[in-house]
Amino acid sequence: MEKQTLLYEGKAKKIYSTEDKNTVWVEYKDSATAFNGEKKATIDGKGRLNNEITSLMFALLQQNNIPNHFISKQSPTEQIVQHVEIIPLEVVVRNVVAGTLAKRTGLPEGHVLRKPIVEFYYKNDDLGDPLFNTDHIAALELAVPQQLEEMKELALQVNSVLVQFFAEKNIRLVDFKLEFGTNAKGELLVADEISPDTCRLWDSETNEKLDKDVFRRDLGSLTDAYEKILERLGGNLHV
Amino acid sequence: MEKQTLLYEGKAKKIYSTEDKNTVWVEYKDSATAFNGEKKATIDGKGRLNNEITSLMFALLQQNNIPNHFISKQSPTEQIVQHVEIIPLEVVVRNVVAGTLAKRTGLPEGHVLRKPIVEFYYKNDDLGDPLFNTDHIAALELAVPQQLEEMKELALQVNSVLVQFFAEKNIRLVDFKLEFGTNAKGELLVADEISPDTCRLWDSETNEKLDKDVFRRDLGSLTDAYEKILERLGGNLHV
Ligand SMILES: Nc1ncnc2c1ncn2[C@@H]1O[C@H](COP(=O)(O)OP(=O)(O)O)[C@@H](O)[C@H]1O
Ligand SMILES: Nc1ncnc2c1ncn2[C@@H]1O[C@H](COP(=O)(O)OP(=O)(O)O)[C@@H](O)[C@H]1O
Ligand SMILES: [Mg+2]
Ligand SMILES: [Mg+2]
Repeated sequence: MEKQTLLYEGKAKKIYSTEDKNTVWVEYKDSATAFNGEKKATIDGKGRLNNEITSLMFALLQQNNIPNHFISKQSPTEQIVQHVEIIPLEVVVRNVVAGTLAKRTGLPEGHVLRKPIVEFYYKNDDLGDPLFNTDHIAALELAVPQQLEEMKELALQVNSVLVQFFAEKNIRLVDFKLEFGTNAKGELLVADEISPDTCRLWDSETNEKLDKDVFRRDLGSLTDAYEKILERLGGNLHV
Repeated sequence: MEKQTLLYEGKAKKIYSTEDKNTVWVEYKDSATAFNGEKKATIDGKGRLNNEITSLMFALLQQNNIPNHFISKQSPTEQIVQHVEIIPLEVVVRNVVAGTLAKRTGLPEGHVLRKPIVEFYYKNDDLGDPLFNTDHIAALELAVPQQLEEMKELALQVNSVLVQFFAEKNIRLVDFKLEFGTNAKGELLVADEISPDTCRLWDSETNEKLDKDVFRRDLGSLTDAYEKILERLGGNLHV
C-alpha cells in the first residue's frame, strides 16, 4: 500500500489516496481543537494515542460484526481504511447527561438516562453543527429514512458493545459521536474515529474525566488522560 | 359562564377559571414580546385582533373536524375554551424557510420546502425553547410516542386546512406554531392560539410580512398588519 496525494485535511486527521481507489490512508495529527475550532493547540503524542485507541475500538467492532471502514493499523500514527463517502451527520449516543444535553434539557450533568438518547447533528462547521430532526435531514436530502434508521440501529449496537467493554476497564462511556459513510458497494459503514476526542469517558469510581473535556475545560494534561485510557485498554503504551 | 380567579398569566393571555372546572376563560392582552421576552411593548388593539383571528381559525378547525379546545368567542378580547393540560411542546410546521430554520440549515429565507417540516420545541422559557428530537421528548417524558405521532399528524392536517384557506385570501402560510393539550376525558386537542403572533403570514404577491416579524424586525405598524389579515379573513374589523 502506497501513500499518495492528500485528499483532505481536517482538524484531526489527513486523508491520502492510495493506489486502490477504494482504500485511503489516514494520518492522525497532533492537533487539538474545541468549540468549533475556536480553541486550538498542538499536543505532542496525541495523534499516536488516538490512532492506537481508534484501531483498538474498530477491531472490537470487527469482532462484533458491526460493519465499519477499518482495515489495518499501518504505523503508530497511521491506519488504512475503506474509502467511503461520508454522510454529513454526526450521530451522537448518550448514556449519561453531559455537555450540550445538560444545556438543552436542564437535566443535571451526570444524570443517568433510562434509555440511550441518539441525536443527529448536521456536520457543517459554518453552521456550528446544529441539531437536526428527521424532517431537517429529509429536507436537505442528507440521508434516506431507511439509512437513518440503520444508522440509529448501528449506533445503538456500537453503544452496547462499547459500554460493556469500557465498563470492564473501569471506564464509564458517557457519550460518543460516530460518522457513517457508504463504500463503493453502497454498504453503510461506521467510519471516522472512536477515541477520547469523540467519546466522553469517565473513571467509573472517581468520575475523573479522561477525554477531550480535559482540553476543553483545562483540567490538566490531555496526553496523561489519553494514556490512562490506552493503558486500561491494554494497548501499546510506547512506540 | 362566569369569569372567576386568574389561573395563569402568560406573555400574551390570561387564563381564568369558571364555575365549570373543564372550561376556562381566556383574555387576550395588548402586549407583544419577542426573542424569549427580551423585546417587549404594549400595543393597543393587539389583544382584540388576536382574539378575533384566533376565533376564526379555531372555527375553521371545528368545520374540518380537527379536535381542538375552542368553545366560543365571549367578547372582542375574550374566549371560552376547554380546560386542557398543556403538553409543554411547541409544534412548528414549516412550508417555506424563514427564521431559525434558515439559521439552522443554511437554506435561504423564502426557499419553498418540497414537504412541510415539523419540529418540536421544548416550551421552557428558562432554556430558551430548545429544539427537541423524539429521544429528548421521551427522556423528559413530555409525551408518549403515540401522542407525538398524533400531534405530528394533527399539525399536518391543520397545515393543509390553513394553507388552502389563507391562499384563497392571497396570503402565504410560511410557518406556524401549535400547542396541544389533553382534556379531562384524555382527548388530545389543539389548544392555545392561532394568530399572526404564532404564524408567519406573507402577502402572496409582494411577500409583505403580515405577522409578528413586523414587531421583531421593526417593519412598521403591527396592528396595521394584523388588521390587513383580519380584513382578508372577512372578520369583524371594528368593535
Ligand atoms: N473512511 C473514510 N473515507 C473518507 N473520509 C473519511 C473516512 N473516515 C473519516 N473521513 C473524513 O475524514 C475527514 C478528516 O477527519 P477530521 O480531521 O476528523 O475532520 P473534521 O475536521 O471534518 O472533523 C473528515 O471529513 C471525516 O469525515
Ligand atoms: N385550553 C387551555 N387550557 C389551559 N391552558 C391553556 C389553554 N390554551 C392555552 N393555554 C396556556 O395558557 C398560557 C397563557 O398563554 P400565553 O400568554 O401565550 O403564555 P406563554 O407566555 O407561556 O406563551 C400558556 O401557558 C398556554 O400554554
Ligand atoms: Mg473529525
Ligand atoms: Mg404563548
